[in-house]
Amino acid sequence: MAMAPSVETLRHKLSLFMQERVYTAEEAVRNFIAQSQDRWVIPDLVEKLKAEARSAGLWNLWCPHPEYGAGLNNAQYAPLAEIMGRSLIGPEIFNCNAPDTGNMETLIAFGSEDHKETWLKPLLEGKIRSAFCMTEPDVASSDATNIRCSITRHDNGYVLNGRKWWSTGAMDPRCRILIVMGKTNPEAERHRQQSMVLVPVDTPGVSIVRPLHVFGSDDAPHGHAEITFEDVRIDADMLLLGEGRGFEIAQARLGPGRIHHCMRLIGCAQRSLEMMCKRAHVRVAFGKPLSEQGSLREDISRSACDIEQGRLLTLAAARKMDETGNKAARDLIGMAKITVPAMAQRVLDRAIQIHGAKGLSQDTFLADAWSYARTIRIADGPDQVHMDALARQLIKAHAD
Amino acid sequence: MAMAPSVETLRHKLSLFMQERVYTAEEAVRNFIAQSQDRWVIPDLVEKLKAEARSAGLWNLWCPHPEYGAGLNNAQYAPLAEIMGRSLIGPEIFNCNAPDTGNMETLIAFGSEDHKETWLKPLLEGKIRSAFCMTEPDVASSDATNIRCSITRHDNGYVLNGRKWWSTGAMDPRCRILIVMGKTNPEAERHRQQSMVLVPVDTPGVSIVRPLHVFGSDDAPHGHAEITFEDVRIDADMLLLGEGRGFEIAQARLGPGRIHHCMRLIGCAQRSLEMMCKRAHVRVAFGKPLSEQGSLREDISRSACDIEQGRLLTLAAARKMDETGNKAARDLIGMAKITVPAMAQRVLDRAIQIHGAKGLSQDTFLADAWSYARTIRIADGPDQVHMDALARQLIKAHAD
Amino acid sequence: MAMAPSVETLRHKLSLFMQERVYTAEEAVRNFIAQSQDRWVIPDLVEKLKAEARSAGLWNLWCPHPEYGAGLNNAQYAPLAEIMGRSLIGPEIFNCNAPDTGNMETLIAFGSEDHKETWLKPLLEGKIRSAFCMTEPDVASSDATNIRCSITRHDNGYVLNGRKWWSTGAMDPRCRILIVMGKTNPEAERHRQQSMVLVPVDTPGVSIVRPLHVFGSDDAPHGHAEITFEDVRIDADMLLLGEGRGFEIAQARLGPGRIHHCMRLIGCAQRSLEMMCKRAHVRVAFGKPLSEQGSLREDISRSACDIEQGRLLTLAAARKMDETGNKAARDLIGMAKITVPAMAQRVLDRAIQIHGAKGLSQDTFLADAWSYARTIRIADGPDQVHMDALARQLIKAHAD
Amino acid sequence: MAMAPSVETLRHKLSLFMQERVYTAEEAVRNFIAQSQDRWVIPDLVEKLKAEARSAGLWNLWCPHPEYGAGLNNAQYAPLAEIMGRSLIGPEIFNCNAPDTGNMETLIAFGSEDHKETWLKPLLEGKIRSAFCMTEPDVASSDATNIRCSITRHDNGYVLNGRKWWSTGAMDPRCRILIVMGKTNPEAERHRQQSMVLVPVDTPGVSIVRPLHVFGSDDAPHGHAEITFEDVRIDADMLLLGEGRGFEIAQARLGPGRIHHCMRLIGCAQRSLEMMCKRAHVRVAFGKPLSEQGSLREDISRSACDIEQGRLLTLAAARKMDETGNKAARDLIGMAKITVPAMAQRVLDRAIQIHGAKGLSQDTFLADAWSYARTIRIADGPDQVHMDALARQLIKAHAD
Repeated sequence: MAMAPSVETLRHKLSLFMQERVYTAEEAVRNFIAQSQDRWVIPDLVEKLKAEARSAGLWNLWCPHPEYGAGLNNAQYAPLAEIMGRSLIGPEIFNCNAPDTGNMETLIAFGSEDHKETWLKPLLEGKIRSAFCMTEPDVASSDATNIRCSITRHDNGYVLNGRKWWSTGAMDPRCRILIVMGKTNPEAERHRQQSMVLVPVDTPGVSIVRPLHVFGSDDAPHGHAEITFEDVRIDADMLLLGEGRGFEIAQARLGPGRIHHCMRLIGCAQRSLEMMCKRAHVRVAFGKPLSEQGSLREDISRSACDIEQGRLLTLAAARKMDETGNKAARDLIGMAKITVPAMAQRVLDRAIQIHGAKGLSQDTFLADAWSYARTIRIADGPDQVHMDALARQLIKAHAD
Repeated sequence: MAMAPSVETLRHKLSLFMQERVYTAEEAVRNFIAQSQDRWVIPDLVEKLKAEARSAGLWNLWCPHPEYGAGLNNAQYAPLAEIMGRSLIGPEIFNCNAPDTGNMETLIAFGSEDHKETWLKPLLEGKIRSAFCMTEPDVASSDATNIRCSITRHDNGYVLNGRKWWSTGAMDPRCRILIVMGKTNPEAERHRQQSMVLVPVDTPGVSIVRPLHVFGSDDAPHGHAEITFEDVRIDADMLLLGEGRGFEIAQARLGPGRIHHCMRLIGCAQRSLEMMCKRAHVRVAFGKPLSEQGSLREDISRSACDIEQGRLLTLAAARKMDETGNKAARDLIGMAKITVPAMAQRVLDRAIQIHGAKGLSQDTFLADAWSYARTIRIADGPDQVHMDALARQLIKAHAD
Repeated sequence: MAMAPSVETLRHKLSLFMQERVYTAEEAVRNFIAQSQDRWVIPDLVEKLKAEARSAGLWNLWCPHPEYGAGLNNAQYAPLAEIMGRSLIGPEIFNCNAPDTGNMETLIAFGSEDHKETWLKPLLEGKIRSAFCMTEPDVASSDATNIRCSITRHDNGYVLNGRKWWSTGAMDPRCRILIVMGKTNPEAERHRQQSMVLVPVDTPGVSIVRPLHVFGSDDAPHGHAEITFEDVRIDADMLLLGEGRGFEIAQARLGPGRIHHCMRLIGCAQRSLEMMCKRAHVRVAFGKPLSEQGSLREDISRSACDIEQGRLLTLAAARKMDETGNKAARDLIGMAKITVPAMAQRVLDRAIQIHGAKGLSQDTFLADAWSYARTIRIADGPDQVHMDALARQLIKAHAD
Repeated sequence: MAMAPSVETLRHKLSLFMQERVYTAEEAVRNFIAQSQDRWVIPDLVEKLKAEARSAGLWNLWCPHPEYGAGLNNAQYAPLAEIMGRSLIGPEIFNCNAPDTGNMETLIAFGSEDHKETWLKPLLEGKIRSAFCMTEPDVASSDATNIRCSITRHDNGYVLNGRKWWSTGAMDPRCRILIVMGKTNPEAERHRQQSMVLVPVDTPGVSIVRPLHVFGSDDAPHGHAEITFEDVRIDADMLLLGEGRGFEIAQARLGPGRIHHCMRLIGCAQRSLEMMCKRAHVRVAFGKPLSEQGSLREDISRSACDIEQGRLLTLAAARKMDETGNKAARDLIGMAKITVPAMAQRVLDRAIQIHGAKGLSQDTFLADAWSYARTIRIADGPDQVHMDALARQLIKAHAD
């Protein structure tokens, strides 16, 4: 089961790039944002690292289409995504960050030639950013029938009205395009009511209301926006795939999206485990190194077991997706989505505890990584929804 | 076991004040800070509410000394602290916020008449704020022998050199006085090396370096500061109690401080439980209210059980402190410190999950309350240190 | 809150009796049963200890009726039940064992003079034992409407047909009387269908089918029986309270019964904690005592915190029952039932782990105590049913 | 990654055999032992099934040596062991039960031709059983230097003195041979003090003292024995491998032994999951099937996730053993040993809870399977020892 040589090579190159360029840039990026008058600004250093990554061939590794990206399948991408995920600034630098990857995927699969030229190309080049507008305030958005944003036919196009929030990346100054889910026909069958459209961020009637915070952090400079759409008019060709097919598009992109989050979170957890080991070795309290204190060793062991199991499960889901398609892999994807973010949250919580007050602060990557893990237990469907769906499958399979 | 009438009355008045004045002010305070150019500024509304609370007799309830405060003992104060703790802006409004309460306690017990006039009086009146400088970067500060900050005799006074962090409240624009723990004699017996001194925040050589973040939040406008002391000169009479008695002072203040945090965290947890119940009732997903979904009901039940047990344990510790003194109550205080913050973290995590993405955001008090609970698992000694101490006592008691 | 002197005295006497007579008898009792040809036999030693306990005034302490027993309320009984619960042979020796206490309670409250003379008197004297036949195979017995056993009028009496299981104590050779729950009117309103009757164990048609095992143990010599009732005829005066009032009787006895189990389980957990402390002190592995190994110290601390919280919660429920009655105390009783058995299971599991293979075996009381705790998470309503009921109350209380 | 056809075929045949012959025999076997006067007797049905399994080619599948067994490697054996592990009587029927497999492995690797003829051959044929005598009372046997049993040179042989317990299978009436670990040289280097010898169970001086119970069950008819060795004389050629090489032999057998336990426990957990699904579907409480009650669905989902992760981890360990040897696979074996038994215990506890009182009893396989899982958290090294060893490796690897 050795990796194909080229993936091995990519792994090695990525690890080296992370070591030499990315980890060392984290503090500078953090300080740049912290000291900037305007928090919604991209440090030059990030653009510089992107250029370096691109010229090193470490670019769009997420993309399974050989024409647009690296052409790797999910199982091949998994260990690479884990490495990039070890830093919260990593995915952006390698053009593998959410939600741009999902949006690019959607444009590749369902976009017109014109969409590809106008939006996909600069996204693939890392020149612009994008957001995905699905979640709405005041309703349980994991149930797609709750969506309230309306997309109504008007003249030769559509008009949108609604309010979205948690549109990650929409605060980014480079964000140019939104993919918006709304209802074209509230009377249709449950999963045929929704459609997806492209909305340029500068279309009249689109207002970025405010950044949402995650445990008090605004996640600048990408952020999570609340956006209102008031009589926003778009041309008919901004509709993706067809009316009533929004749910279908959402399903298509969510499988890989969930697995990519899991891969990155395994990277976060693994890095925090290594930090725990280092700290255990050097930190002295009450006259002996922490490594000589049993409960810390159990924290380390449990974390290593947790991570390895999460990694194997995510890889199994990735393989199943490659072999039989996303739909047949649904249960394994669900299992990864249920367990890996919670696992990363748990491991990061232990790492924070071992680092003491420093672990809570901006001086390590732990607090931000923890917030990321915590968020993913809600994003793309809360744990409970996935557990429910999985159990129903299992009961059906074994009840007879 | 009915409360003395006056405590019942206070409870009732406090609950009403919270309902009518405090909860409704939370959003305005939050928005004021969010939109302010300078985050380290106190909203007028807060000062207004303080004045109202004071004139309503809801002031300095924490203070067991009838001369300076309400004269309540720990068991009487517990249910009141729980009510105030239900809002993160509550304790400040009632002049019961950490670390000012601990600092006032210290000044009452160990301050000179001059200290009382200059610092205690305005603190009791809520006119100035204070900070407590104990924790240092790069060492395990839960072990007091690790402290590096030096307090050296010089002429007729002392000179301080060192670096402190996590000095809560020191970013507050009203902060005037620091209580600083340092070493006067590194050669002395383990717990006689340390001393505590008063340092006005505007003394030359005192520099507020930066605010520390907690999960990305700066906790403005109070904040947690990193502070350097470079050749800071103070008069001899700024020494509290005597050289080598810093550890003793720290011990004296920590018991009540820990219990107060527990009481407030029970308030946070209780409020989040009530929010879960409300949400379960009104929120609909997949065609039925959340309250009809079993796992949510178990979350609610478990949380209620957790909270009630934490409340009873904290109250038992408070009673023991009242009856036999802080030292004899050490095991119960330790038990509360070990369990209550972790319990509040757990309950708040459930409440966040039930609230979905909104629960992560600034739109409820849940995320900030969670951060508070998480922080207290490290502040005033990490869980592990307290578990260790408790176990040693128990093994000693039962080993023979 | 000091105990009334007489309770303090009872506590002291009980502890001494446990120390001098009960713990030391455990091994002999265990070996007697293990080596006996017939496992359903009572060792003479047990009868001897009962006589000693009775003459020492340590008898029927559970009974709140001064005419029949010690006249203590629930809060007074709690610490005594904890002490007796520290040994699995304890409750029998002090005539405080389930289900006899509940059965005696029922006879006191609802029995005729004749019932009292014939059954209550010898039960109070410890001369006979009894069983309570409620649970049935194949249906969810926590929902009383599921009961299938029929009690039909016939001539001047009733005839019973049905199958019961988990009738604790019915294997005991001294067992003489069964209290049986069945349906007199399946058409009545939900909670008026059931009645309770007294059935002497030697009534024709009553067959003890087999002993049920708990994790492979038959719990001899008391056991848990499966019993069939085939055309069992009883006189009309064997009916308790009235037709259709069986549910009402069940509710009346369950409150105290649940709390008594919790008290005893706290005793089990506390004893296991003390055993952990002792073992930590004397056991050496890899060159140092277990007490120097951090994770064990955390197990000890967590267990102590868990136990203390369970004790305080059970006591709070007991006080509430004393002050306001069982019905008003329902939520607190539910909280104790939900948390204490699970807590005892957890603490005993840790104690077993620390004792290694010995902890699994018959050489300590740990394995039996664990089985007891595990059983109580199902008996008298599984955890889930209690969590459900509690949550519904809370949602109702806070939803408006 | 499809299995080689022959393994697929074995899987299919095994599943069928389990379905048609094994599950259906469980009750008969259980009742036979329960009703037998002598509990240490083998039901004819078991011997009959063994003969059937053997003639179906489902025999000695554990054995990687093509000369002696099926010649499968660990990764190939894993899914087969899982299937056999689904019944507690399975492994015996297929001649794959512990400790006989480990003992046969030891005889294959280190036995003389004479040993093989006398002991290995009948073991491979399922005609006799064996036991492994390592653990001793009163010392922490996970630390091999604690072993007290002495093996002293005497004339042309050795004489043994000592006490062993937890010798699984030694109560079995067919047990003929013991492999005993003792000390030949207490002065030697730490891991060279121990030797292993073969001792026929009928050698004078060998006394089976008593069966040890596991949570009250004697695990008849195989059992766990306490055995004394008093001046037991054996010939010199009964020594395995050489003096001082006992620890080395122990290490060699423990890797596969631990992994085999994990595989079987995954089978137990998987079967209990399927039982939960069935029960959720058919059982009605409070007017609706359990499957419509959310918390049960979460129990099912969590269990499925837990099991899949345990399976993947165990398989990863098996593969690593096959590819790089047991020593290099040490960390993965340790991870499986730490997590899988605890996982099975957790899943089985949930299944028991869902089955109510029936789940505690002899009427399902759940209680016995739970006891097996619980035992393995202590056998072959308690969790804590494995966590400790794993953490030390990790700290060493990452500390620099």
